[in-house]
Amino acid sequence: MIPAADNSENWLDDLKWDEKGLIPAIAQDEKTAKVVMFAWMNRESLAMSVETGRAVYWSRSRKKIWAKGEESGHVQKIKSIRVDCDKDVILLSIEQIGGIACHTGRESCFYFRLEEREAVLEKQAKAPIKTRQYWKAVEPVIKNPDEIYK
Amino acid sequence: MIPAADNSENWLDDLKWDEKGLIPAIAQDEKTAKVVMFAWMNRESLAMSVETGRAVYWSRSRKKIWAKGEESGHVQKIKSIRVDCDKDVILLSIEQIGGIACHTGRESCFYFRLEEREAVLEKQAKAPIKTRQYWKAVEPVIKNPDEIYK
Repeated sequence: MIPAADNSENWLDDLKWDEKGLIPAIAQDEKTAKVVMFAWMNRESLAMSVETGRAVYWSRSRKKIWAKGEESGHVQKIKSIRVDCDKDVILLSIEQIGGIACHTGRESCFYFRLEEREAVLEKQAKAPIKTRQYWKAVEPVIKNPDEIYK
Repeated sequence: MIPAADNSENWLDDLKWDEKGLIPAIAQDEKTAKVVMFAWMNRESLAMSVETGRAVYWSRSRKKIWAKGEESGHVQKIKSIRVDCDKDVILLSIEQIGGIACHTGRESCFYFRLEEREAVLEKQAKAPIKTRQYWKAVEPVIKNPDEIYK
């Protein structure tokens, strides 16, 4: 365990942590190049990620360290870690064990795509284009969540 | 211009905006699959993005609507818009005009990679591995920023 107050890691000091001590992290599959997840890290979880070579996040809802895959087995092996020009966003290149990153049993969490409704009714066809759009689930469930989280 | 208080766009209501009325947005190049940028959107900028087919963000530092490329010409044409399982993160698939997303003149903002220093000194070689790492710029500058922002 790495103490959160350990200031010896200069590369951690280089980062811009937000007012809650967090930094956004994007996980991208190394092979498919798909963006599979977005989560947050605190200093401790990022240090743990580097130490263990596995993605470790900070769960804002549960307010605790969250080693990705600790329940599902869907661990993310880290291939490389990048940060952006402002040093306030992390990009992980990962190998997604099980090929499933999402708790819904899908490969990626980004499975809703903005689509236009088919204008079946005259009334809808006359509506402004923006009100005819909706979020459509476009990626298949690979494994039933009930089977993932037993 | 779309009024921010216009509640008729249901797909906008479906999203979970944070306490500041913002949502994180990831921009991914449609052709190279590179993650090129991360920024924030408010309701108005996302509505404008959909209306215009160009990425429009909310600049937290300047506290104003920021049509990407308005100064640099490096516009992002939107190919598709996705949202994640929690409906609180946007993923844009874009065509990056000029092939440069970053204000530093690079293709992507994510150009720093965490690397291990070469242990040239005995002292460094004995240091804990984490203190020997640093953020190394690994992507070339395609165009000098002075030429981009005249």
